[in-house]
Amino acid sequence: MPLSHLKKAGDAVFVDSYVTKAHEIVVPWDGKEVAPFSLIGAPLSKTSISHSGASFSPTVIRKMLSSYSTYAIEDDIDLKDVMVTDFGDILMHVTDLDESRNRIRNTIEELLSQHSNTIPIVLGGDHGISFPSISGFKKNKGKVGVIQFDAHHDLRNTVDGGRSNGTPFRSLIEQGIIDGENLIQIGIRNFSNSKPYSEYGHDHGVTIYTMRDVRQQGIEKIIEKSVNSLCEKVDAIYISVDMDVLDQAFAPGCPAIGPGGMDSMTLLDAISLLANEDKVQGMDIVEIDPTIDFRDMTSRIAAHIILTFLTNKQKAIV
Amino acid sequence: MPLSHLKKAGDAVFVDSYVTKAHEIVVPWDGKEVAPFSLIGAPLSKTSISHSGASFSPTVIRKMLSSYSTYAIEDDIDLKDVMVTDFGDILMHVTDLDESRNRIRNTIEELLSQHSNTIPIVLGGDHGISFPSISGFKKNKGKVGVIQFDAHHDLRNTVDGGRSNGTPFRSLIEQGIIDGENLIQIGIRNFSNSKPYSEYGHDHGVTIYTMRDVRQQGIEKIIEKSVNSLCEKVDAIYISVDMDVLDQAFAPGCPAIGPGGMDSMTLLDAISLLANEDKVQGMDIVEIDPTIDFRDMTSRIAAHIILTFLTNKQKAIV
Amino acid sequence: MPLSHLKKAGDAVFVDSYVTKAHEIVVPWDGKEVAPFSLIGAPLSKTSISHSGASFSPTVIRKMLSSYSTYAIEDDIDLKDVMVTDFGDILMHVTDLDESRNRIRNTIEELLSQHSNTIPIVLGGDHGISFPSISGFKKNKGKVGVIQFDAHHDLRNTVDGGRSNGTPFRSLIEQGIIDGENLIQIGIRNFSNSKPYSEYGHDHGVTIYTMRDVRQQGIEKIIEKSVNSLCEKVDAIYISVDMDVLDQAFAPGCPAIGPGGMDSMTLLDAISLLANEDKVQGMDIVEIDPTIDFRDMTSRIAAHIILTFLTNKQKAIV
Amino acid sequence: MPLSHLKKAGDAVFVDSYVTKAHEIVVPWDGKEVAPFSLIGAPLSKTSISHSGASFSPTVIRKMLSSYSTYAIEDDIDLKDVMVTDFGDILMHVTDLDESRNRIRNTIEELLSQHSNTIPIVLGGDHGISFPSISGFKKNKGKVGVIQFDAHHDLRNTVDGGRSNGTPFRSLIEQGIIDGENLIQIGIRNFSNSKPYSEYGHDHGVTIYTMRDVRQQGIEKIIEKSVNSLCEKVDAIYISVDMDVLDQAFAPGCPAIGPGGMDSMTLLDAISLLANEDKVQGMDIVEIDPTIDFRDMTSRIAAHIILTFLTNKQKAIV
Amino acid sequence: MPLSHLKKAGDAVFVDSYVTKAHEIVVPWDGKEVAPFSLIGAPLSKTSISHSGASFSPTVIRKMLSSYSTYAIEDDIDLKDVMVTDFGDILMHVTDLDESRNRIRNTIEELLSQHSNTIPIVLGGDHGISFPSISGFKKNKGKVGVIQFDAHHDLRNTVDGGRSNGTPFRSLIEQGIIDGENLIQIGIRNFSNSKPYSEYGHDHGVTIYTMRDVRQQGIEKIIEKSVNSLCEKVDAIYISVDMDVLDQAFAPGCPAIGPGGMDSMTLLDAISLLANEDKVQGMDIVEIDPTIDFRDMTSRIAAHIILTFLTNKQKAIV
Amino acid sequence: MPLSHLKKAGDAVFVDSYVTKAHEIVVPWDGKEVAPFSLIGAPLSKTSISHSGASFSPTVIRKMLSSYSTYAIEDDIDLKDVMVTDFGDILMHVTDLDESRNRIRNTIEELLSQHSNTIPIVLGGDHGISFPSISGFKKNKGKVGVIQFDAHHDLRNTVDGGRSNGTPFRSLIEQGIIDGENLIQIGIRNFSNSKPYSEYGHDHGVTIYTMRDVRQQGIEKIIEKSVNSLCEKVDAIYISVDMDVLDQAFAPGCPAIGPGGMDSMTLLDAISLLANEDKVQGMDIVEIDPTIDFRDMTSRIAAHIILTFLTNKQKAIV
Repeated sequence: MPLSHLKKAGDAVFVDSYVTKAHEIVVPWDGKEVAPFSLIGAPLSKTSISHSGASFSPTVIRKMLSSYSTYAIEDDIDLKDVMVTDFGDILMHVTDLDESRNRIRNTIEELLSQHSNTIPIVLGGDHGISFPSISGFKKNKGKVGVIQFDAHHDLRNTVDGGRSNGTPFRSLIEQGIIDGENLIQIGIRNFSNSKPYSEYGHDHGVTIYTMRDVRQQGIEKIIEKSVNSLCEKVDAIYISVDMDVLDQAFAPGCPAIGPGGMDSMTLLDAISLLANEDKVQGMDIVEIDPTIDFRDMTSRIAAHIILTFLTNKQKAIV
Repeated sequence: MPLSHLKKAGDAVFVDSYVTKAHEIVVPWDGKEVAPFSLIGAPLSKTSISHSGASFSPTVIRKMLSSYSTYAIEDDIDLKDVMVTDFGDILMHVTDLDESRNRIRNTIEELLSQHSNTIPIVLGGDHGISFPSISGFKKNKGKVGVIQFDAHHDLRNTVDGGRSNGTPFRSLIEQGIIDGENLIQIGIRNFSNSKPYSEYGHDHGVTIYTMRDVRQQGIEKIIEKSVNSLCEKVDAIYISVDMDVLDQAFAPGCPAIGPGGMDSMTLLDAISLLANEDKVQGMDIVEIDPTIDFRDMTSRIAAHIILTFLTNKQKAIV
Repeated sequence: MPLSHLKKAGDAVFVDSYVTKAHEIVVPWDGKEVAPFSLIGAPLSKTSISHSGASFSPTVIRKMLSSYSTYAIEDDIDLKDVMVTDFGDILMHVTDLDESRNRIRNTIEELLSQHSNTIPIVLGGDHGISFPSISGFKKNKGKVGVIQFDAHHDLRNTVDGGRSNGTPFRSLIEQGIIDGENLIQIGIRNFSNSKPYSEYGHDHGVTIYTMRDVRQQGIEKIIEKSVNSLCEKVDAIYISVDMDVLDQAFAPGCPAIGPGGMDSMTLLDAISLLANEDKVQGMDIVEIDPTIDFRDMTSRIAAHIILTFLTNKQKAIV
Repeated sequence: MPLSHLKKAGDAVFVDSYVTKAHEIVVPWDGKEVAPFSLIGAPLSKTSISHSGASFSPTVIRKMLSSYSTYAIEDDIDLKDVMVTDFGDILMHVTDLDESRNRIRNTIEELLSQHSNTIPIVLGGDHGISFPSISGFKKNKGKVGVIQFDAHHDLRNTVDGGRSNGTPFRSLIEQGIIDGENLIQIGIRNFSNSKPYSEYGHDHGVTIYTMRDVRQQGIEKIIEKSVNSLCEKVDAIYISVDMDVLDQAFAPGCPAIGPGGMDSMTLLDAISLLANEDKVQGMDIVEIDPTIDFRDMTSRIAAHIILTFLTNKQKAIV
Repeated sequence: MPLSHLKKAGDAVFVDSYVTKAHEIVVPWDGKEVAPFSLIGAPLSKTSISHSGASFSPTVIRKMLSSYSTYAIEDDIDLKDVMVTDFGDILMHVTDLDESRNRIRNTIEELLSQHSNTIPIVLGGDHGISFPSISGFKKNKGKVGVIQFDAHHDLRNTVDGGRSNGTPFRSLIEQGIIDGENLIQIGIRNFSNSKPYSEYGHDHGVTIYTMRDVRQQGIEKIIEKSVNSLCEKVDAIYISVDMDVLDQAFAPGCPAIGPGGMDSMTLLDAISLLANEDKVQGMDIVEIDPTIDFRDMTSRIAAHIILTFLTNKQKAIV
Repeated sequence: MPLSHLKKAGDAVFVDSYVTKAHEIVVPWDGKEVAPFSLIGAPLSKTSISHSGASFSPTVIRKMLSSYSTYAIEDDIDLKDVMVTDFGDILMHVTDLDESRNRIRNTIEELLSQHSNTIPIVLGGDHGISFPSISGFKKNKGKVGVIQFDAHHDLRNTVDGGRSNGTPFRSLIEQGIIDGENLIQIGIRNFSNSKPYSEYGHDHGVTIYTMRDVRQQGIEKIIEKSVNSLCEKVDAIYISVDMDVLDQAFAPGCPAIGPGGMDSMTLLDAISLLANEDKVQGMDIVEIDPTIDFRDMTSRIAAHIILTFLTNKQKAIV
């Protein structure tokens, strides 16, 4: 048994034989089998209006998974046998941003056309990736509804700066990928949007819950109403989580931070409730810039979102 | 149209034609017209007991305004036509701190004597600036009441270290600028004050609400009682916001941070309620040290305080 | 009176004659008298599974005490006459971790055998110090119950990596220092533990309150139940505060941070309630790594825990 | 003279009446007169292969100028009457990188066609800006030679990632803007380039001085040879300063840092010597990312490069 | 060709088809073939006298290799066909430091007994790893000489704190692994050592070159003398590079930094000269703590040391 | 031997019985005996033109002494029996800066009038402290010459901002404390001074060596000339070390950093040479702001300056 104490570079420095770490259930794709859940990185953030290192976030979120275990003690559910296929990251073009966006759409579309039952969890990147990601998702899923957690509408015009991280839902509506009535925005905040874009949303039938709504009605009720409303109208629901829906005290690593946002437990509760719903079949997590975060706090919440989502999907099955 | 893509150094790198950014309504004084609201920096922090870079905060708060828009979606009020005159900063003397304080008092006094209807929003600096600021305010406003958000009494004696950021309200009372009964302190915290100064407050009729009071009674009730009580007795109310009233998790950039404080939404709610009251005619925001903050979080809250104040003043008019 | 303005290196740069700072009541041991409360540092963190600078935390917590005063305005209790004996830090061996642990146990044991009435407040160090600290405590106190605030069980096996910061309560149970039924864990979190260790806890009678329990039942009720339950069975209660029971937004300086934890006020409330109980006769505060904290926020909470504990012990006497 | 102590927001907090600060000679363009020197920002860094915030550097370099004075004591030259026209920054498109590059080329071309005698000092951005900048420069200046300070060749192929910050000199050669023989690279480093690109340089007649050459021959001799060689062949010389030519200890804020580079005094000496040469009529300074720098050290060197250049141009005139 | 733009998580975000990055020649061991050079991590830093995260450095140094290419332009040597076998890291015990040290010795010993011609490059960890590493090396190499670059003697007694990072060469001498006369220390600094340990070195025949010697004699001459002296007496030479031999301005990431040290180019020159010597058959690089470094500067120098070593070994062969 | 492993809070975590740490020879004053060397902190930095935390530097420099030993191996001198009396810090007034300056002057004057043979080493604070420090020194020492290491003249007028850190040598000359001809400035830099102040220096006979002089003539020759020149004219020489004489790469913690400065070894060489001269009887070290430094590098150099000074004073005696 020579050289018996070597471990591969990058492997954990300590293994407890009674602990399953969350990253252990995320297995690189072998080109064949695909698990019920898929992880795909879409590391595009050159489309951001402001400077953004959100392209680093798939790597950091994966790393954060290794800080947590598979066991949800509050639900007594252990995810250790739940498998997630890791498709790695979509390679972005260095200078051609349209091409990068196309690669995202095509990859999601191809993935779901070949493996229609897997639930993709797409890690941005900035919010611009939701346009191609949902476009690819839609090709395989019929009528799509979107529940967007966000401080901002992201309904900007595409003339001033092209398709950026401020425009994804405008693009989706204008290109007919989704109907405005099937878009629900939760967590919209004061002084973070302009009146013309709020009006655009209202004019196109978008449902808008502000943070005051969240505080006054409670997240449970809002999620219940949202799910009920969408389930009648769409075939599949896609959750788009812009982490800046959270207050800056909880998610310090988003490019566009501010006060008055959601706390992380409320967001995790929302994810739990949504995951219980069968029609929820895709999710992205965007706008985490690890280069400006503190101790990867925001990516840690992203890891908990993924695990909470898996736990409740699992609970729904069990 | 040669050289058509140049922008002035310092101007925004991207302009969305449908968005009004908050800094756009803050217009440098042209020496003539003065808007209903005035912004004035009082960058004095050499008077601080501990090392403080609060003198940088007027610059940073102004910059943070450019991160937010003018639209309060929750109230459907757009501030884009509300004008704020920016008087710039009061020039501080490098080594003569008394002279610096005099300049603050004289500037506020002169400003209000010439433009009696404008509401001054004074950006500290440390809390020491409230003494000259309120002194100047008082000269034009008759009997003045003060609502102070703070973890600390700031009622220290002026013998041990002169007039510092620990003494403003002691100075105001002792010089007869305000009566103790017209001073209301909200958010006072355990282990952040000494018993002799609490007693001084009680002996002089100061109303003191601790954080336990805030948690038990709720901020709405406390503000309502405070406003009712003062309105009977004074001609004008001045709000003094020491940002360390907030918990360190929400306002990491104050010199004297600690646990057990207010969250930022509660403070914004208080500002909303106060702005609705006509007699509230002045405000300062102090004790933000941008050199030790994280991602200007504390200055971002200050920007929201200003915008929330304007929104509710506007709402009161409309 | 020559050289009249000199102060000793390290002394405060400003003294207000009406303020007592908290560190003034913490007096280095003179080898004789011991006050009702004792402070002892146990700066061991080489036993941590992950890299940890928790050994720096006794020094930083002491320093943070000098940022706060002795006056609890909410209870109108001034601690200025409460004395705490500072025994300094237990000297750790550079490379022999067993020896370091032995020194901790022996020191606590000797201290209490010689001064049986003093209440030790032990500053870690990582959570590994609770095993020797409680072992030494137990030698003098009869049957001991433990109330552990923690996101994690810390019930790992000792085979995989020896006695680490993941194993203290396993060691205590297996060596018969405490009974599993006399261990109460509060604040246990999802994805922060493994199922086999939760089962180990249940199998040994450990009472486990998760964060969901804390949110649903309220901390007051949980503390009340815990105290009532233990008081019937044990002679003395020891509180073990792993600061990672707090949410990462509140305690950014713990090695194992994450979302979904307790806020700092809830923890302080729990400490208040526990301090009122006579049988609570020891406490440790562990898992603060000042080298990764932000502005010593986590050590500041530790200082408030100590002062809150003293205040309520004092209140119980008065 | 009321309100006599106000200063405009952003103005200096202290003015010494006997000191001229360097930023005072940099005057925003009034649309008419243009000084002998022009400052233009080209804040493009989305073309970088790796994540880069070099787009922030024009703003920071300008700010650093305000930290220094106009007086070169070693040459007894005071620049206070030397004027520099500040054209501000070229507005970059949010998502269309070709358009951004075109704007740079057009702006430089238009500027020089209208004001042929001004010497442009272009502040990047990443090194990708040198392609359009030199292209625009060339349109007005006849045959152009380039002296490039750089650890890297920047002669990458444009197929793999389009025109990035690794390709500017390849693009210039391939598009016939400059001849390879008129390109001189100084400071090229081990392990920072690939053999095929060194060969490409050699095949196209590029003169390459490695850091070993700089250490062995001395910078004076290399500059002398370079100037002599180019002056025979070209009408105008353009200096392109990639700050990563400096050792990481001196320029910690470049994206691609490493050991074994130049010290800052050697680079400043090179700039002095070059500025003395009449044919040197343009310069860019690139690859400073202020978001990762330490105390803006790298931008401070850039400010000294500009001032050293002006001083020696002035000395040449006098 | 579906899903054609996916890349494995962790793979490079951009590949230039004409560039070989240095990490590409470092290939994980397949259990069979071993290349002429071997990389092995020895991530032990719990043996450090002061707090140290040097255990993270093998991971970071490997990552830094991916920032550099294989081409040494100054020598026109491309390392792209030089292979290095990466044995990964030796697994350290969480709490048993003797066991960890044994694993290091055994691994090096086994590796060289099975693959006697490979040259091990061992990445610490703190300097404590040199004791087991050289012990294992010695078992296979006959009489061993050591050239140590260091600000410190590392000849401390082992009684006060056990075998720490201050004792490796004392242990080697006292256990007879090497003779004092075959130990050469280069770069020893003022105020970084104690007289008794300097005397111990002199008494045991250790050759000591201080930084003043390096400045006065030049590194070339010192290396020449050192190599000549050792080659007569030993069978194999092992280089031990404590990065704190460098001045703090160049290597900011060592635990024990200070002024007056070597610059990085001098150290790289020394490595070049040593690599040319056939008897140099092993090397370690220690005392880099990435958690306190600035932009991994110190690990970047380590990467250059490895590449410089390989280049000159290659040059010697060619 | 109970409680045998306790150490006082703040004491070293490891003691090697064969090592004397530098802080061990710095002994707090007992009110009686005074050693040949005295350490006094003058923590005044509110007089700085720009924001400065230089008041923290006496504490940090003292702490850095504990990182180094007493042994100068290059000179084989062990300082372990050299005693330094630590007078602690002069207490600064919170708001009265004139009073603070008076306390500095009076303390130095009183100290030297009572203990005329001790050599004071004064730790600033900003450079403003040199005015009162040299004033107090002068009262006891007859005619005083000053050798100032500095990038700046510090000869500003006192009208614009009072007596600040830009005016000390102007004040000394104008108040007749020193003659301009007895002031020697070494290390003056381009773009760091204004022509009027250089002229003021020349007009008053100040000797000015720029950095170019230092590079061209060498520090040894400049020091020799300076010492020779002063020794003929004055009774005592005082060294004033403004750390910003160093290049920003070596002293990153000075408020006014820039490129083109001295390296730390050159400064240490200068200190060595000066200490050998009997008439050198006082020194201050100023302008280190630990709050913006990197790993206390600049304070580490200060510690080496003190130790180098002591070593060479000792060597002169021996």
